[in-house]
Amino acid sequence: MNEPDIFYILGNRVRRDLLSHLTCTECYFSFLSSKVSVSSTAVAKHLKIMEREGVLKSYEREGPFIGPARKYYDINIAKTYVVTITPNIFWYRGLDLGEGLEVSIEEPESLDEMILTFRDLSGKLEEILKELQAVEGRRDRLMAMIKEKYLKEIGDMTQLAILHYVLLNGSATVDELSDRLNLKEREVLQKARELDKFVPLRIKEGVITIDDERLKAKLGEEDAGED
Amino acid sequence: MNEPDIFYILGNRVRRDLLSHLTCTECYFSFLSSKVSVSSTAVAKHLKIMEREGVLKSYEREGPFIGPARKYYDINIAKTYVVTITPNIFWYRGLDLGEGLEVSIEEPESLDEMILTFRDLSGKLEEILKELQAVEGRRDRLMAMIKEKYLKEIGDMTQLAILHYVLLNGSATVDELSDRLNLKEREVLQKARELDKFVPLRIKEGVITIDDERLKAKLGEEDAGED
Repeated sequence: MNEPDIFYILGNRVRRDLLSHLTCTECYFSFLSSKVSVSSTAVAKHLKIMEREGVLKSYEREGPFIGPARKYYDINIAKTYVVTITPNIFWYRGLDLGEGLEVSIEEPESLDEMILTFRDLSGKLEEILKELQAVEGRRDRLMAMIKEKYLKEIGDMTQLAILHYVLLNGSATVDELSDRLNLKEREVLQKARELDKFVPLRIKEGVITIDDERLKAKLGEEDAGED
Repeated sequence: MNEPDIFYILGNRVRRDLLSHLTCTECYFSFLSSKVSVSSTAVAKHLKIMEREGVLKSYEREGPFIGPARKYYDINIAKTYVVTITPNIFWYRGLDLGEGLEVSIEEPESLDEMILTFRDLSGKLEEILKELQAVEGRRDRLMAMIKEKYLKEIGDMTQLAILHYVLLNGSATVDELSDRLNLKEREVLQKARELDKFVPLRIKEGVITIDDERLKAKLGEEDAGED
């Protein structure tokens, strides 16, 4: 992928500090360098890494005084990243905050209104984070239960690995699973067909998903059977 | 902080692969090593780093055959991390997925129901991510507008830096701002008082927040004045 390896970029305190300063104002090299507690050589190295990864872009512009042009830096991405990591779940995704999203909303025109709207949205953000936390907490707990149950009742590790992957990713190609499980493609298909006896799957054109309709129908039958 | 530097851990593809395998099943060293395409020395190094940072824990257990005990690894954290990075906004937070959250929810008992509930929650997660994306997109756009407006109408970079920091973090201590802006504490207070003339602040016991009540009152007066 040509995406910047954002975790690599964020995995360094100095780079995080530099990014933090860059969100406030346009910054030239010596300004940035004065804001962090490492050598200017180190700052230059980190800026170079971030520019190479596409997180920053730079441009030259005359400063306020006579002299050589200054090199300015800007953040070049607009994304929200979400990562969940637990004993049962690991996934991450980058959400594009680019233009086109809800462009129809009319933003306020006075500074006061802008600030109040920002405050309101920050309150909304806190609510969203609480929901995210609750959903991920439950998904983690459920995945732990699913793993335990599957091993106890069916006991096949490879089938479980396919189920785990499909549940976490929504779907999986036979190719992906073949790479991941170190199996030949026909072995993956064989295992998927075995899994399908316990958890209804849709296997179509090399893509495996959970068959929600058949799963619901199966559950309906079970409920009926209990009556 | 004693938190693991999760971005550092995630900033490496091999470590991400190892974590991904670890969420599916309990793993011992040679199993993990067979799953990734680097040398076992490299795998050992990455496992050691993750254990040192507190992301993994290890324990020894007898294998299924006679022989030395095997070293197993487990993921030792349960968190969701959210990061937003744009030209105007940079923040990140770790959300604890630990116990105690909505323990009152009764989880299903059959495998089919567990899987269906997991699928439902994954759908809910997608909705939450869409909301998160929309809110962060708007906050980014608003912050860009606030920065531009403040510089055009008031023009003081340091005041803007305080406003930016307080808006992003909800509040700021004079100490934090003093560190960040490279100013003495009384200079921070002076600048905050100047900012307060344009954006109502609450400055109390060294903590600076936006004064929403005064801001709303001010907006009410402006609206009344327009009539």
